Amino acid sequence: MQVNGIPYRCIWPEADRRSVGIIDQTKLPHRFETVSLRTLDDAVLAISDMLVRGAPLIGATAAYGVCLGLNEDSSDTRLDAACAALIAARPTAVNLRWAVERMRSLLSDLPPKKRLEAAYQEAAAVCDEDIQVNESIGEHGLDLIREKYAEKGDTVNILTHCNAGWLATVDWGTALSPIFKAHAAGIPVHVWVDETRPRNQGAHLTAWELAAAGIDHHLIVDNSGGHLMQQGKVDLCIVGTDRTTCTGDVCNKIGTYLKALAAADNGVPFYVALPSSTIDWTLEDGAAIPIEERDQEEVLLVSGLSEDGKVRQVRIAPEQTKAANPAFDVTPARLITGLITERGICTANKDALLALFPEYTS
Amino acid sequence: MQVNGIPYRCIWPEADRRSVGIIDQTKLPHRFETVSLRTLDDAVLAISDMLVRGAPLIGATAAYGVCLGLNEDSSDTRLDAACAALIAARPTAVNLRWAVERMRSLLSDLPPKKRLEAAYQEAAAVCDEDIQVNESIGEHGLDLIREKYAEKGDTVNILTHCNAGWLATVDWGTALSPIFKAHAAGIPVHVWVDETRPRNQGAHLTAWELAAAGIDHHLIVDNSGGHLMQQGKVDLCIVGTDRTTCTGDVCNKIGTYLKALAAADNGVPFYVALPSSTIDWTLEDGAAIPIEERDQEEVLLVSGLSEDGKVRQVRIAPEQTKAANPAFDVTPARLITGLITERGICTANKDALLALFPEYTS
Repeated sequence: MQVNGIPYRCIWPEADRRSVGIIDQTKLPHRFETVSLRTLDDAVLAISDMLVRGAPLIGATAAYGVCLGLNEDSSDTRLDAACAALIAARPTAVNLRWAVERMRSLLSDLPPKKRLEAAYQEAAAVCDEDIQVNESIGEHGLDLIREKYAEKGDTVNILTHCNAGWLATVDWGTALSPIFKAHAAGIPVHVWVDETRPRNQGAHLTAWELAAAGIDHHLIVDNSGGHLMQQGKVDLCIVGTDRTTCTGDVCNKIGTYLKALAAADNGVPFYVALPSSTIDWTLEDGAAIPIEERDQEEVLLVSGLSEDGKVRQVRIAPEQTKAANPAFDVTPARLITGLITERGICTANKDALLALFPEYTS
Repeated sequence: MQVNGIPYRCIWPEADRRSVGIIDQTKLPHRFETVSLRTLDDAVLAISDMLVRGAPLIGATAAYGVCLGLNEDSSDTRLDAACAALIAARPTAVNLRWAVERMRSLLSDLPPKKRLEAAYQEAAAVCDEDIQVNESIGEHGLDLIREKYAEKGDTVNILTHCNAGWLATVDWGTALSPIFKAHAAGIPVHVWVDETRPRNQGAHLTAWELAAAGIDHHLIVDNSGGHLMQQGKVDLCIVGTDRTTCTGDVCNKIGTYLKALAAADNGVPFYVALPSSTIDWTLEDGAAIPIEERDQEEVLLVSGLSEDGKVRQVRIAPEQTKAANPAFDVTPARLITGLITERGICTANKDALLALFPEYTS
C-alpha cells in the first residue's frame, strides 16, 4: 500500500539488520509515525501495547521479535526465553504462536552461530508469504463481490468490523483485501466501517486505509449494523479473525458475534477472511479459546484529535466508574456463510477446511 | 432521586410560573447544571439538542413547552404553532406527540384566558402521573428480579442499554426503576452498562445514576454484551423504548436490536420497560416507525473530561471521514420476552397489550 505516494509494508528490516521498522498504529489516523524496534522487549511491547495489531501482523512482528532476541545471544536458553516472552505478549491470536513455533523449530536445529542470519531470512519469508496469502484471499473474495455486483447491478455495500486491512497484515489485509481488489477491478463498492470500540480500529485505521485507497465508505457506531441490515443496506459482511477453530468457530474482535447474529437474522451473507495460519487445528470448540481481558482504561478513555490540534484522551464516564473490557468474542460456525482462505472459499466446518488443507488430516 | 443529598425531579416549574427548570443532561457526568427554559424555543431546543432526552421526559418537557408557548399569547393560532414546533423537535419518540395532543385537546376547549393556568396544571399532572407510572413499572419489574434471585441465590446481573433511568423520566426511570426497587429491597444486583454510542448515554448518565444510588455496575462497550451472554454473565436484560407498536415491536436506541438477538441466542430473558404512553396504538408494524438520522458529528466527535480538567470533544476519525448516524432501531416482538408496563407484565403482542389496556380495543 502507499502512504502519500510512498509504498510501505507494515513491518520491514532496517538497513542495519539489527532493528526492525514498524508503523506505530496507536498514532493513526492523526499522525503517521514509524518506529524502530531494537530489542526483544521492544517487540514484546509493540505487540502488547498494540503499536502493531491484527493477527497476521502480530505473527510477522513475533518472527522479527525472535531475530531481535538473538541479536546479542543466540543460545538455546536465549531462544527459549525470547519465544516464551513473545507468546505471552497477547493470548488470543494464534498466529503469534504459529510464527514463534515456526521460528523456533527452524532455529533450534541450527548451531547458535548460524541462527541470527537464518532468523532474519525466515522472518522475511514469513512476511513475503503473508503478502502472497493475502493477495490470494483478495482474489477469492473478489469473486463474491463480483457475483453480488452482477446480481444487483449497483454499488455493493459491505460491512466490516475492526481493522482487517493492510495495517493488520504485512500488506493487502484479509477482510479488506477483496475490497481493494474489487475497487481496482472497477466494481463500485461502499463500505460500512464499524468504529469498533473500545480501541476504535475502524475509525482510526479502516477509515484511514479506505480513504487512502479512494474507496467510498461511512463510519458507523457498532450499534448501527443491525439496523442497516434490517433496512437492506448491507449486501455482504466480511470480517477477519484472530483464531479459527478447525470446526470453523471464529474468535475475532469483540462485537463480531453481534454482527453475525444480525446478518443471520436478515439473510445477509457473513464471510470471514483468514490466512490458514489463524486456524488452530488443535481446537474443536471456540468456547475453549482464552479471551484476553484488557485494561479498563481502554473503555473509559477515548483518544482523538482535540480542537487545539493536540491528540488527547478524554474520560467518558464518571471518575470512579469501573469498566470490563473483553477484547474478543467467538462467533459460532453456524452463523458464518463461508471462510475465505488463501486456497479458496469453504463452509465453516471441519470437513470443508480439511478438504482445502488436507495436510492437517490426522 | 437525590443529587448530593438534595431531592430532584428532572423537570420542575420555577417559582415565577413563567419558566421551567431542567437538568442539562449534555453536561453530565462531569458537571451537574440546571437550566431555566423561558420560551417555546428554549423547550424545542432542549428537546432537539438533547438537554433532555428519554421518551417520558421528552413528553413532560413538551407538556411544559406548551405552557411556555402560551406565556405571552394564548390564542388558537399560538397554541397550534407551539404544538407543531414541539412535535417536530424529534420524530421518533411517541410520548412527545402523546403529551402535546393531551395538552392541545384540553386547552383548545378552553377560552384563551383560562389556558395558561390550565396548561401549567396539566403539565404538572403529566409529571406526577409519570412518576406514579414509573414506580408501578418498578414494582412489577422487581418481581422478575426477585424471582431470578430466588432461583439463583446470588447477585442478579442485569444488562441495560442507553439510559432509561431517572434521567429519562421525571423520576424513577423505566428500565432502571425495577433495579432501584430491587436494590432498595436488599436484593444484590449488578448492572452491565452499555456505553451506548454515539452519545454515550450509558457512560454519561446510567453509570452516574447507578453510582449515585450505590448500585454495583461495570461500564462496557456496546460490542461486549453478546460475549457476556455467551459466558453466562447476564441473567436479565431490561431496556426502555421510545415507541412501541400495539403489536409489541420496540423502537429504542440504536443497538437494542443487537442485544435482543444475543439474548434470544443465549436464552437470556429480554424485557422492555415502558409507560403505556410510549405505545403507538395506530401502528401494527415497527418497520413503519420513522428513524431519526442525527448529525454525523455525534459519531465523529466524542466528548469527555480531558486531563487538563476541561470537558473537550475529540475527533476519532480522519478529518474527511463521513459518518452515518441512525439514532434508533426496531426490535421485533418475537425477540422480546415481555413488556413491563405500569399495569403489569405481558408478552409482546397485541392481544396481551389489549388485555392490560382494554380501553384501546377498537
